[in-house]
Amino acid sequence: MTEIGKGQFDLETAVEPFDDGRFAVDVSDQWNIGDNPNGGYLTAIALQALRKLGPHGDPISVTTHYLRPGSGGQPGVVTTELVRSGRSVTTGRATLIQNGRPRIEVLAAMGDLSGQSGHDNEITIAQPVEMPPPEACVERDGLEQGVKLFIASRVDLRVHPDTSMAGRSTEAETLAWIRFVDGREPDALGSVLFSDAFAPSIFTRLGRVGWVPTIELTVHVRRRPAPGWMLGRFVTEDLYDGRMVEDGWLWDSEGTLVARSRQLAMLLPHADTSS
Amino acid sequence: MTEIGKGQFDLETAVEPFDDGRFAVDVSDQWNIGDNPNGGYLTAIALQALRKLGPHGDPISVTTHYLRPGSGGQPGVVTTELVRSGRSVTTGRATLIQNGRPRIEVLAAMGDLSGQSGHDNEITIAQPVEMPPPEACVERDGLEQGVKLFIASRVDLRVHPDTSMAGRSTEAETLAWIRFVDGREPDALGSVLFSDAFAPSIFTRLGRVGWVPTIELTVHVRRRPAPGWMLGRFVTEDLYDGRMVEDGWLWDSEGTLVARSRQLAMLLPHADTSS
Repeated sequence: MTEIGKGQFDLETAVEPFDDGRFAVDVSDQWNIGDNPNGGYLTAIALQALRKLGPHGDPISVTTHYLRPGSGGQPGVVTTELVRSGRSVTTGRATLIQNGRPRIEVLAAMGDLSGQSGHDNEITIAQPVEMPPPEACVERDGLEQGVKLFIASRVDLRVHPDTSMAGRSTEAETLAWIRFVDGREPDALGSVLFSDAFAPSIFTRLGRVGWVPTIELTVHVRRRPAPGWMLGRFVTEDLYDGRMVEDGWLWDSEGTLVARSRQLAMLLPHADTSS
Repeated sequence: MTEIGKGQFDLETAVEPFDDGRFAVDVSDQWNIGDNPNGGYLTAIALQALRKLGPHGDPISVTTHYLRPGSGGQPGVVTTELVRSGRSVTTGRATLIQNGRPRIEVLAAMGDLSGQSGHDNEITIAQPVEMPPPEACVERDGLEQGVKLFIASRVDLRVHPDTSMAGRSTEAETLAWIRFVDGREPDALGSVLFSDAFAPSIFTRLGRVGWVPTIELTVHVRRRPAPGWMLGRFVTEDLYDGRMVEDGWLWDSEGTLVARSRQLAMLLPHADTSS
């Protein structure tokens, strides 16, 4: 069991202030999918810097535009700007730069998810889906399509046994359990990572068509998760003209909705979608 | 019938370049809800500036953080920055400033929705809801809760006759037809406006609790709409601790899904949610 704040995730997203609004970071290659660091991992680095702009530590709305792949195993700089400092929300933007080139651009609202607003009215439409326990699910192994999943050393993903990546389904849906390999418990920051750490749900319909670049990802973290496995559901709701919208839900071990996510991604021109 | 590019919407969102990446704008008060300009209108102003950063005219992913209310009837400046110029996507950010204070911060990907990618695989999960024709619906009048809806002079909204704002429903759902009053046909830019021009869906459950400030709005425009009325559906999917996530769908007159939207909004501390 690794304490929140002291896990691999915390160490490998840590940023060091060195100038007005600028932070140094070592981008690890242990979150790579093949040659490129996972997008959720890069966003978590930017959020570590944004946390330092004000008193609010929980990301409540995070939008990342993926400009170019990051470089695992190389240093980087996060530049930040405080957009607005409010009583309940701190808004900021951040750019992760490596080798002089911006890799991601982030615009985020940070807040407090400790549940102190005093409003007690609640609505929750999305209920957790039925899912066999993690032991009955399939471990995502370290190799897919000849691409090494370094991230498997950091994130343990257990996929629903009926989920096929063969491209024979009309549905495009991924269901899986997720947790940190080192036992570090989930939190609001980890929920942002987990919202972009699953295989693209479009694979279940089209097969493994290779890299599906994300143009933009927005995550809303709604609550701090309880300890234990988190359950993720990701569905490609709309594919048209080579661009798709994937919706995501994350629940904690108590079945509470923790995060909603949506991303706009694209099929590359050479992607085989003949199936 | 007013041509696209020559309607009130186009005239009143027009921006004039005057410096490196800076644009002047007159923010109209005809899109006001009470004292404050509608948020979708302010976002459309920022997008007019972002359109000038590259060859891509269609907003495909737009995220707006609402920092402070805008000032209708006063001039403003839009500052922009080109984040990335790509073959299929131009990414930029924009800030609308009035009286020296930033009002909204926008991060957007602009693209081409003419349907030329060559990919013909399609998925559409969300189907249009059943809806009586506009003639059988209820006009949103010019006054609500004692607040004057100046925007009713620009946008014609026809609400489903069964939609109650009395706060007696367990559902929080708004259904309405929408179009420009002057007959200007909808387009991708107009679809962003329309994604933030409906009454908050939470009203159908809690009653008219007053101003529900949006923290952040993200709109994905998926296709250019056909001429005619557009149909909007907005649902509060999740309300917890005074913050809510509202999801939106816009279809065109042919029943084609045009835009998906999601916003994070908050109940003010004094909002009456006792019902």
